[in-house]
Parts: sequence; C-alpha cells; structure tokens
Amino acid sequence: MVAWKNLDTLDSFKDLAGAPKVSVKEVMSGDSGAARVKTYCVPMAAGLAYNYAAKAVDDTVLQKLSALADEAQLAEKFAALYGGEVINTGENRLVLHHLTRSQLGGDVVKDGVNKREFYLAQQKKIAEFAEAVHAGKIVNGAGEKFTTVVQIGIGGSDLGPRAMYLALENWAKKNGAFHMEARFISNVDPDDAAGVLAGIDVAHSLFVLVSKSGTTLETLTNESFVKDALAKAGLDASKHMVAVTSETSPLAKSSDYLAAFFMDDFIGGRFSSTSAVGGAVLSLAFTPEVFDRFLKGAAEEDKLATKADALQNPAMLDALIGVYERNVLGYPATALLPYSQALSRFPAHLQQADMESNGKSVNRFGEPVSYPTGPVLFGEPGTNGQHSFYQLLHQGTDIIPLQFVGFKNSQLGVDVDIQGSTSQKKLCANVAAQIVAFACGKDDANNNKKFEGNRPSSIIIGDQLTPEAMGALLSHFENKIMFQGFLWNVNSFDQEGVQLGKVLAKKVLAHETDGALKELSDLFEI
Amino acid sequence: MVAWKNLDTLDSFKDLAGAPKVSVKEVMSGDSGAARVKTYCVPMAAGLAYNYAAKAVDDTVLQKLSALADEAQLAEKFAALYGGEVINTGENRLVLHHLTRSQLGGDVVKDGVNKREFYLAQQKKIAEFAEAVHAGKIVNGAGEKFTTVVQIGIGGSDLGPRAMYLALENWAKKNGAFHMEARFISNVDPDDAAGVLAGIDVAHSLFVLVSKSGTTLETLTNESFVKDALAKAGLDASKHMVAVTSETSPLAKSSDYLAAFFMDDFIGGRFSSTSAVGGAVLSLAFTPEVFDRFLKGAAEEDKLATKADALQNPAMLDALIGVYERNVLGYPATALLPYSQALSRFPAHLQQADMESNGKSVNRFGEPVSYPTGPVLFGEPGTNGQHSFYQLLHQGTDIIPLQFVGFKNSQLGVDVDIQGSTSQKKLCANVAAQIVAFACGKDDANNNKKFEGNRPSSIIIGDQLTPEAMGALLSHFENKIMFQGFLWNVNSFDQEGVQLGKVLAKKVLAHETDGALKELSDLFEI
Repeated sequence: MVAWKNLDTLDSFKDLAGAPKVSVKEVMSGDSGAARVKTYCVPMAAGLAYNYAAKAVDDTVLQKLSALADEAQLAEKFAALYGGEVINTGENRLVLHHLTRSQLGGDVVKDGVNKREFYLAQQKKIAEFAEAVHAGKIVNGAGEKFTTVVQIGIGGSDLGPRAMYLALENWAKKNGAFHMEARFISNVDPDDAAGVLAGIDVAHSLFVLVSKSGTTLETLTNESFVKDALAKAGLDASKHMVAVTSETSPLAKSSDYLAAFFMDDFIGGRFSSTSAVGGAVLSLAFTPEVFDRFLKGAAEEDKLATKADALQNPAMLDALIGVYERNVLGYPATALLPYSQALSRFPAHLQQADMESNGKSVNRFGEPVSYPTGPVLFGEPGTNGQHSFYQLLHQGTDIIPLQFVGFKNSQLGVDVDIQGSTSQKKLCANVAAQIVAFACGKDDANNNKKFEGNRPSSIIIGDQLTPEAMGALLSHFENKIMFQGFLWNVNSFDQEGVQLGKVLAKKVLAHETDGALKELSDLFEI
Repeated sequence: MVAWKNLDTLDSFKDLAGAPKVSVKEVMSGDSGAARVKTYCVPMAAGLAYNYAAKAVDDTVLQKLSALADEAQLAEKFAALYGGEVINTGENRLVLHHLTRSQLGGDVVKDGVNKREFYLAQQKKIAEFAEAVHAGKIVNGAGEKFTTVVQIGIGGSDLGPRAMYLALENWAKKNGAFHMEARFISNVDPDDAAGVLAGIDVAHSLFVLVSKSGTTLETLTNESFVKDALAKAGLDASKHMVAVTSETSPLAKSSDYLAAFFMDDFIGGRFSSTSAVGGAVLSLAFTPEVFDRFLKGAAEEDKLATKADALQNPAMLDALIGVYERNVLGYPATALLPYSQALSRFPAHLQQADMESNGKSVNRFGEPVSYPTGPVLFGEPGTNGQHSFYQLLHQGTDIIPLQFVGFKNSQLGVDVDIQGSTSQKKLCANVAAQIVAFACGKDDANNNKKFEGNRPSSIIIGDQLTPEAMGALLSHFENKIMFQGFLWNVNSFDQEGVQLGKVLAKKVLAHETDGALKELSDLFEI
C-alpha cells in the first residue's frame, strides 16, 4: 500500500533541505565540470540522454534525492497508477494514458473491458482508416483524394497533437512518410476558424473533431463553423468529418461522421497525444507507421520510468531536481528551451501539461498545502530565445532553472557551410555554450558585462528528432510531471480550476449578471 | 535635469510599500466592483481603453503611485529620451524609436542629421519600393510579379514584425489591403530555412534581409541558405533580395541587393517594429497605407504617454501597477492573455521586449540593485489558454498578475450563431468572466473546487484589432517597459547578457574549449 503524504512531512525532504548547497559555478569549472558532463548523465530511450551536469546537485544531494524518491514511494505510486488504481481521486478515475503505448504491469480490466486492448483496437481502426484515405479508398463526394486534415479541438485536443505534427512534419517529408498537410482550429475566436478555412481547399479536406465529452463549447462551435463552410461549398459535411470522442458522448454514434474513434475518461486531455486524439491526425498526416514508431519511443521511455533507482530513472530524477529547485532553492519558474525549430510548440504543450497538472494549492485530500507546487513553465526554441528573453535568464534578478533539448543532426539534412561550420554545428555549439555560460558566468570589471553564473540547467541530447525520439521526449515530461505531482502530493489529473470561468461565461451569455460582471459585459456590448 | 535614483531610495516608494493592501476580491464584489469597472479606466488611442478595475489598487494606492511617478520623474525622463539625450548610457546611444512614428518634442539632430527626417525618408523609400513591387514595376528575372515576401532576421528583426504580420493578416485580407504572403526565417537550425524554402515558390519570392549590424551570425547564415536555394533554382539572388540595415554596415552599399533601407543604432532591435525593420515586410505584405495607419496608432498612443499625470497616462499607470505587484506584493511573473487569435505571437514579442529590456541586476551606473527587476512574461491567446495553463493561474500557489486584451468585433466578420450567441460574443463573454473569476473566486465546501480569488488583472479593450489599434497596443507596451526601466533605474536599452553565449559558441566552433565546454562539444560531436 502506498501512503500519500505531504512533501514537508517527509524526513528525507527535511534532510534534503538541510544539505549543503552546491555552487554550479564552482562544480562546472575546470576538471570537475568535464567529469560531471561525462558522469551526470542517464540514458533515455531512442538514443537520448538526460544530462544534469549543470544542475545544483552533487553526490550528497543526489543521495538525498534518492532517499526522497524512496520515502515518497515514487516507483510504487507509478506502479499503482499503471496497475489501474484510482489515482485521479477527485474525479474517481483511473489514469491510463501509458496503456495507449505499452503494458507496464498486468492487464487493467475496467467494467469488463481490457483497457489496453481497447486502446489498441482504436489505434488499429485509425490505422485502417488512414490507410484507406491514403490509398484513395475513402474519398470526398467527387471521388477525389483528401489532401488536408484539419483537427478541431482545444487544450489537450490541440496543443499536443499540434506540437507533435510540427515536430515530425519535416522528418516525415524527408522520409517519404508525409501524406496530408494538417491544420488546426482551436480558439472560439471566429477569426481562427475563418482564417484556417480561407487558407485551405475544403473540398479536399477531412476534419477531425476532437472532444472527449462531446460537449466542449469551443469545439462544437467550430464544428458548426466548418459545417457551414462545407454547406456553402455544396458539400456533404458527413463525408468530410470524423470524430474522436468517448463512447458515451453525443458524438459517438452520430451519423454526422465518416467514422468515430474512441478514448475514455481515463485519458486526460493533456496526456492524450498518444491516444486516438493524437493518433487520428498524425496517422492521417503522416502514416500509421510513423505514429506507431512515436508510440514505441514513448513506451520504451515509460519502461525506464518504472525503475525504482532514481539515478537510473531520467523522468524521476528530473522531477526530483525540479522539486529541489522549487521547494528548497526557491526558484519561481522554469524554461524549456529546445534547440530545434521543429519543437517550436512543444513548450506550449508542456506549459499545459505541467501547469494544468500541478498548478494546485490543495493536496489529494483537499487540504491546503503550505509549500509551492507547480511553477510557471515557458519557452521558445533556441537560438531564437538567445536573441530574446535570455538576457533576463543570464542577468535578471531571479534565477530560472533551464531545460535544454538538442540534437546532433537536423531532420531535413539540408545545410550550408559558412565560416567553416554548418548551421547544425552552429546550433549545437550554441546550446553547449549556453550551458557553460549560464553555469560559470564571467567576471568583468564592468558590472554591466558581468555574469554571475550559477544558473542551473539540464539538457536532453539526442541524435535526431525522429518519431521514436519525440515519443521518448513526450513520455519523459509526462512522467516527470506525474512524479512531481506525487512529491507535492497533489492530484495531477483533474483541473477544477478551469470550471468557474466556464460557469461565469455562461451567465454572461444568458445575461444573468450583476456587479462587475454586468459592467464588463456592457463594455463588450454582450 | 533628471535624477536617476534606485527605486528603494525613493520616499514615495517606501510610502507605497506601507499602504494598506487592497483585497481584489472585496473591492470587485457587488456595487463596488461595478463602480470600479466604470471608473478605473483610462482612454487609449484608436478607441482602446486600459481598464484596471481588477488590480489590487484603490484611491489611496493610486495616489501613492502618482507620487512615485512624480518623484521618479517618469514624465521628465521620457521627455529627455524623446528629446535626444543619451538614455542608453551603457552603449552611449540615443533612444529614438518614437521618432519613427512621431515627433514628440523638438527636432533631434545627431551628427548633422535630423533623425525624424531620416526615418521618414526611409519609410518613403520603402513605400515607393512596395508600390512598385505591387504594381509589377519591380519584378523577378522572368518579368513576373513577386507573390511572397520572406523576412530573414532574428530577435527584434523577427518577433515584432512576425507578430504584427499575424495580427493584421486577416484584417488586410478582409479590407483589400493584402498583397503578398509573408514568411519568416530566423533560427540557425537549418531545418527552419530548409522548411520555409521547401514551402514557397522561390522564383516569385522577395527576401528581406534584416540585420542592423550586418554581422548577425544566424541572419548571414540564413542569407547564404537562401542564396544557395536561389542559385540552385537558376535565379539571380541580387534580383530577389533587399536589405534592412544601418548605413555603416557591410550590407549597406552591397550590389547583392535590389535595395537597402536604413535604420540606425538609436533604434533597439526589440523596439524596431515601427522602423524599416517592420516597415519593409509589412508594407510589402500589406500596403504602405496599412503600415502608415499602424504608425499613426502608435504615435497617438505615444502622445498619451507623455502626460505627467499618471492616472491619465495608460502606459505609465500600467508600469506603476506592475512595479507595485513586483516589488511590494512580490509576484514573480506576469501573463499576457490576448483574446484574439490574431495576437497569437504578440506575447512572444513582448516576452523579448520586456525581459530583454528589464531583466537586469545592475542599475544604470553599473551598481547591483537590491530589489527584483523585470519578471518572467509569458502568454497565449484566450480562450486557448483557458484549456491549458489557467488552472495554475486560478488555483496555483503563486499569484500571477494578468494582462488581458480583448475586442468587441472580429477581424473577418465571419461568424456562426450557436446556442443563441456568436463565437465573437462567446469570446468576449469568456474574457469578462475570467476577470471576475480571477478577482472574486468562489467558495466551496470542497477545497478542490474552491477559488481563493484575489488574482489581479487588467484589460485593454477595443472595438477591433485594426492597424491603428495594433500600433497603439505596441506603443503602450513599449512605453510601459520604458517606464518600468526608469522605476527600476536600469538601462532598458542594452543587452549585455546575450554576449557571453556568443563568445563561447565561437570558441566551440573554433575548437578552443576545455573543461565542461569541451565535453559538451564532444557530446554533440562538434
């Protein structure tokens, strides 16, 4: 049996808080720094590695972090989760997104259904559908092939799939696995749908409507938008749309769709990229094989996350270091900095995954916690960020821990040699340089040109951003978030904080307002 | 003469710090809240208004903020800046971006050049060039019209122009002012340039190379990338490229370009959207008239920023409230949340403008300051953010002040009526609802469904995101950043914090490394 305890009640946390602080600047200088880069490194799946040489840890801190992992029962809690316990207690739900890509423990059977088999069956249905679309067996009303796929969804039904599409678009093009351009409609702002629709050929577009409940206001509104556009073009909407939803939703059995693919309540939106939510659009845009390789990368990384030894478990170690930075060192935010243009929207996805999961003030029993939980997470690709907000990261008054990601090789393999090096080498040189610049700083008689250093970072480094690498990266961060939720003793799988706004927005639209809300409604002439 | 003093040495700041704290929840409830929405509002240019009803201020705090503005001589410092004093002392430079759109004080003459006339002349040259391109007088080698404009630049030469292009793209299309699709290449990651080039028709593309110094590594590398692609397509690169640079740069007089348009050292990259840096791409994509209207909106807003009365000066008031939140209330970050899909990249631009300007630890004399300066700034459009990181904003352990932006009308005017309201009304209802939800919260016997409220926000509200409104918005935030820099007594116009990384990256490429940097270089096989 696992015991759910607040972080500040754990002896190992108190012990950790009392450990001598490590000067990143000191340990990353000279031979010590070289040795750390070689040894403070854990292998990940798909040829990736998590390198934490430039974090504010040493063997003493690491040993205390391991002890914290043990006392907080991180491995046991993960086992309980993938074993099918009700981990999302607030909503009385299992948490089964790992099953969409692997079977970590024994079968999970719920209401008579083997859930792994259920998710697999949906993947198979999607694969067959995508292959039929690619082969021209499923076509538009005029008997022509579809050329564009448009995902209609918001939040978890948008950010993850969109980030994954952008991450693998060039890879798929380079590797002969690209079939359809993908577009995304998410916002209730009518200019979003209208803008996307104006830029595509609707007659050759297939729309994927994604809403687990089948009741998401933005998504249903955008569905109507699209149906209007199809009708105006003289097209039969039901021949242009598929649904991704739960079996119990109003969309599930509707004749409005060419097909319906299912997820269920045990897959949280922000963890749904490896379910049908990501599967449909990615299999259609690329191929089912690409999606399968992406799942395999995630599955392989998930297995590493089951290891009880924190120092051999990259997601667990990353989580522990993050909690140390947040709750002992007191850093307020964290930045994700991928040196890969393909990962341009991965920070936005993780911003949701992280902040929505762990931005909580009460523990899983509904008791207020007396320590900071999830931090603000933000980021943009390097080297772009270097010419933007890095100034604050280097010389600002707050220390912001950094998470770099970098690859030895580009996806397209097209490059130029300028001043003796390729663009890819320059990209890699920059991320290497930044790690040392942040850690070691530089003294200068002019304070304005002085860098204090001591700004901790880690890097996930790989050969190339392949589907497997993308799956492994995604799994790493999903599991990191889960482990941090365990440490903070919060329920990372509900999101009650989004409800009040929805309720009040309905009141505004029904004109049931008073006070400030009425005046604000009047300002907008609602 | 103005006196540059640290924030914590000002009597009015100490007085402000001692003022009774305002409960946003209390004051935004009932009649008080309604009254605040009506009165805590300052008109802006282009029909916009800055509403700070839901900020943690009352008349007492506002009076103390006004006193702080006076003692810190904010209006006088701005006057010194637009009057041509050397405000960027670190680099011994004037700060003249306001002159690109207005003449706020007397003429500024530097080295015998009337700077306003110089910037105006560049605008005129750009306008004539853009009109010749649109009219088919400047064409490609085959005598055909250009259809696409591609900006090559990074940081300030990318983020602002890109954000402005996306902000006005649909407006221009709707209003018959759209001429050319724009694309952007920024990252040294070769997949950025290769991906953009694969997606355009290079034979009909005009490339705008933007680098003030003419030496930006990423930009020169990407120029070569593009020249390679043009050469491979059998095209003469010099017939496809224009340069935006300073007159002293190596690009200025080169025969490699169809034309060169100039800025100078007195326009910081992050403040260059209203200079030739934004002017070329926006005038080409849209029309010179659209760019001119954008400048007029910024100019009108700049004039409001000259007012000495903080309560009538939206940028100054916004700046003061932000400093109060950062330095008295101790909030660590701030979020920019535009309820407009067109503003999807405006937060990324402001992230640079704000964090690069005020992410400093020393004052303008190079002395370390003992208070927090610029915060982390992040954001995504609503309603998307509501389905993402808003959970943390509502129920996380940190309070993050929020800056909303919203418009009564969409840009394209295409909409659907679902459940009794249009998408635009739903969008507006959501932002109104969020302000109240964040401020007032909601009690609940279940702590997990409880909202503490007391989360402060402001909103800039307007009729529609027109070119004038975009100009006014941009000016507002640029001036807010400037006023905050004055309050923190930092130099907001240099960026020494970006230098060390550049130096170390060069060492990596030259293989002049040791220690951790050598090991990291080896990991990347550089």
